[in-house]
Amino acid sequence: MKRGMCPGTFDPVTSGHLDIIERAATLFDELVVAVALSPDKGGGPLFSIDERCAFIEQATEHLPHVSVRPFDTLLMDFAAEVGATAIIKGLRAVTDFEREFQMAQLNYRISTEIETMFIMAIPEYMYLSSSAVKEIARHGGPIEGLVPLHVHDALEERLAGSRLGRT
Amino acid sequence: MKRGMCPGTFDPVTSGHLDIIERAATLFDELVVAVALSPDKGGGPLFSIDERCAFIEQATEHLPHVSVRPFDTLLMDFAAEVGATAIIKGLRAVTDFEREFQMAQLNYRISTEIETMFIMAIPEYMYLSSSAVKEIARHGGPIEGLVPLHVHDALEERLAGSRLGRT
Amino acid sequence: MKRGMCPGTFDPVTSGHLDIIERAATLFDELVVAVALSPDKGGGPLFSIDERCAFIEQATEHLPHVSVRPFDTLLMDFAAEVGATAIIKGLRAVTDFEREFQMAQLNYRISTEIETMFIMAIPEYMYLSSSAVKEIARHGGPIEGLVPLHVHDALEERLAGSRLGRT
Amino acid sequence: MKRGMCPGTFDPVTSGHLDIIERAATLFDELVVAVALSPDKGGGPLFSIDERCAFIEQATEHLPHVSVRPFDTLLMDFAAEVGATAIIKGLRAVTDFEREFQMAQLNYRISTEIETMFIMAIPEYMYLSSSAVKEIARHGGPIEGLVPLHVHDALEERLAGSRLGRT
Amino acid sequence: MKRGMCPGTFDPVTSGHLDIIERAATLFDELVVAVALSPDKGGGPLFSIDERCAFIEQATEHLPHVSVRPFDTLLMDFAAEVGATAIIKGLRAVTDFEREFQMAQLNYRISTEIETMFIMAIPEYMYLSSSAVKEIARHGGPIEGLVPLHVHDALEERLAGSRLGRT
Amino acid sequence: MKRGMCPGTFDPVTSGHLDIIERAATLFDELVVAVALSPDKGGGPLFSIDERCAFIEQATEHLPHVSVRPFDTLLMDFAAEVGATAIIKGLRAVTDFEREFQMAQLNYRISTEIETMFIMAIPEYMYLSSSAVKEIARHGGPIEGLVPLHVHDALEERLAGSRLGRT
Repeated sequence: MKRGMCPGTFDPVTSGHLDIIERAATLFDELVVAVALSPDKGGGPLFSIDERCAFIEQATEHLPHVSVRPFDTLLMDFAAEVGATAIIKGLRAVTDFEREFQMAQLNYRISTEIETMFIMAIPEYMYLSSSAVKEIARHGGPIEGLVPLHVHDALEERLAGSRLGRT
Repeated sequence: MKRGMCPGTFDPVTSGHLDIIERAATLFDELVVAVALSPDKGGGPLFSIDERCAFIEQATEHLPHVSVRPFDTLLMDFAAEVGATAIIKGLRAVTDFEREFQMAQLNYRISTEIETMFIMAIPEYMYLSSSAVKEIARHGGPIEGLVPLHVHDALEERLAGSRLGRT
Repeated sequence: MKRGMCPGTFDPVTSGHLDIIERAATLFDELVVAVALSPDKGGGPLFSIDERCAFIEQATEHLPHVSVRPFDTLLMDFAAEVGATAIIKGLRAVTDFEREFQMAQLNYRISTEIETMFIMAIPEYMYLSSSAVKEIARHGGPIEGLVPLHVHDALEERLAGSRLGRT
Repeated sequence: MKRGMCPGTFDPVTSGHLDIIERAATLFDELVVAVALSPDKGGGPLFSIDERCAFIEQATEHLPHVSVRPFDTLLMDFAAEVGATAIIKGLRAVTDFEREFQMAQLNYRISTEIETMFIMAIPEYMYLSSSAVKEIARHGGPIEGLVPLHVHDALEERLAGSRLGRT
Repeated sequence: MKRGMCPGTFDPVTSGHLDIIERAATLFDELVVAVALSPDKGGGPLFSIDERCAFIEQATEHLPHVSVRPFDTLLMDFAAEVGATAIIKGLRAVTDFEREFQMAQLNYRISTEIETMFIMAIPEYMYLSSSAVKEIARHGGPIEGLVPLHVHDALEERLAGSRLGRT
Repeated sequence: MKRGMCPGTFDPVTSGHLDIIERAATLFDELVVAVALSPDKGGGPLFSIDERCAFIEQATEHLPHVSVRPFDTLLMDFAAEVGATAIIKGLRAVTDFEREFQMAQLNYRISTEIETMFIMAIPEYMYLSSSAVKEIARHGGPIEGLVPLHVHDALEERLAGSRLGRT
């Protein structure tokens, strides 16, 4: 049985992430979405590791062979631990490509047993990132369609106090 | 009457920014230079929002149809508020292009009424950025020609205490 | 009165070209679509200069301030001849950006009177080019939506004899 | 059973292609190497379609679940015909990425049933292409290790007459 | 006598840096490795300026014409101070290229006497950076071969307390 | 004595090439400009190998340690033949970088004795290429400053018959 892994910080998961997860899910018998703790990424995540996992679980509950797991170790160690033979990532832009290329090479050096594979974001989501969504939400801009509905509501609530502009 | 908008943080305005502003000014009946508050960009701006606006006002006073306005909302909301139908940005490099492409797509999704347009930096200013100017000034290097004279003097004064090297 | 120009080979015009032309048309009082003769581009164009102009005329007949003109001179000379003050081009990718950047710099050196401006292709058309359309059509693949209907029919007819695959 | 496809012109197959094919082979139950006829690519291929297929067959004979098939139709039609659910390509550089991105988007538009996946070339083969190998061989330079031994000998023989330099 | 300079933060020096230094050393009669103090780069360096210099001195002691010197001034001022006529940098990726291009242009503007030259990282080290090494070491991953042995040991010791994962 | 080599097709030499040659000349005791025969590059060169060499000889006659030599072998073989220890190339853009990176890696594989070094084109010449100059000249556009005066005159004469546009 082939098991794949989709790693990320997912702070929060976007419609672009979910498109990659759903397409990756068709390529494997089992797919693990691996959520990195990332405590120090740019001032810390907006949502806790538990919240981030729960968002994805709710958004993928129609996919029984997809599971969500937090991790705080080296990605390749975690992939080996869960028995994944491939890591799947979405590519959006040239700068994505370069960063991912570097990481794929480093990871291949750590273990040649686990292959990193890439699929291209569909055009509609090429411009989409968690940080762009948070930036728009922070200024009260429209984020409908950029994130699942339950993430939309959680973002509204979380940012209610710190909302800028559009008063 | 066509009104355009040139947004940025302008901390401080450089000769490269001014070249883009002057060229954009020939394309519109009115041009608004929109200065973002950006309180949290890399430790906060070196100059206050009032200082940054004043630098641009002084540098564009020969252009009566150019006005300068601070903003702290979503860019597309501010563009709508001032009645701009186009946003003009300068492109210098491939990494600029990718970031701007993402923002243009997001902004187009928020409003298809306002078009984002790009003009290329001239070769002399392709290497120029506010942060490069500050980095050079901080080490006492020569910034003549990279910023207008009044910005040059303000930079010298502001950095007089924190000056590194070239003792 | 501001007059803009959209240059290209348009062999044939695609839905992506037309999106750029329509968006550019909102930014100028008059817009000239300038069709380059390009006799030697990769074995010569598939459609004659008259056919290529006619395709665009038909596709833009709802835009009375858009006109279509063939040219076979230096772009900047033709822009000056028709009285355009700006050239508008669509950007799709990093390689587009680099080629266009080089041409914009060369053209600016020839005349600083005429500004080159860029707008970003919308995501749906980012992958679209005349040569991709011809390649797909040549193999009998589906090109609906990639070109206007009358161009679609002309492509079918032109390639009927040389059709590859999908027999 | 999951079936993948590795398409290319393979004129001739290089050690870089073979690395991608071998890694892709571990990810699928069956892998079809699809060799494009490409009659008009830069003056025509150096080796015939039969020769190119035979080179790959010999180099992959230790992989019983890898088969080699020529094609001359639209890639997506051929993938559907052989029942592949994924197309695997190797990425070497940013320019590869952009071209492949465009093709992946076009192909996804033709059929959302077939996913295009990318794996990164290993560093040793990042600089390697069929055309570079032919260019070196043409000038009598060393191509050991860049192609399998039987391709090496075929290249030597084919280019014996046209050899330039290194006399 | 030609004197070259290899500048960097080297926190810590990697096998990739040393490859560039050794290759640069063959091109000059004397080579100065210039170690930037960089007190504020991403939370401060992991190793002190003295430690970083000592690591390089130990790794280059077989190269008598290579010397190591700390600096905290404008790079071009320091290059002039030590009498270097060329600055040598390694390039790994497109994003490196863009950043280095900008710095080379700025530096050329400060002094046309000192030329910036680039050599390409060899494929094995193209993915290698000080921050990647620290990231792997922090999670207890394998860094053998990525840094010299004495740097390896220092990294292990320095990170012993803060080690994450791989428990 | 250190000997460097600047290779190219130089059809014809531009002001950008000459800037690279002059700057490279300060870095070596002797510099060989190596002119590739390139009989099949895009329909063949406009100028013969003898003309192309003569143009460079005339433009560099004030630099006694610069010599010009045609070659038609593998670059690394020719570099070894003339005793060069380094190859110097100018970089203008990201696409240059990628192509040059590939060639540098291939050449390093052929011989580790000869280092490929890069210097950045100055901003004024970043947009300049032999093919752009020929394209402008063919349409009667202004090429003053883009090539030396004697190349300017030769281009005018050579293209007198085939001149397009600007009648």
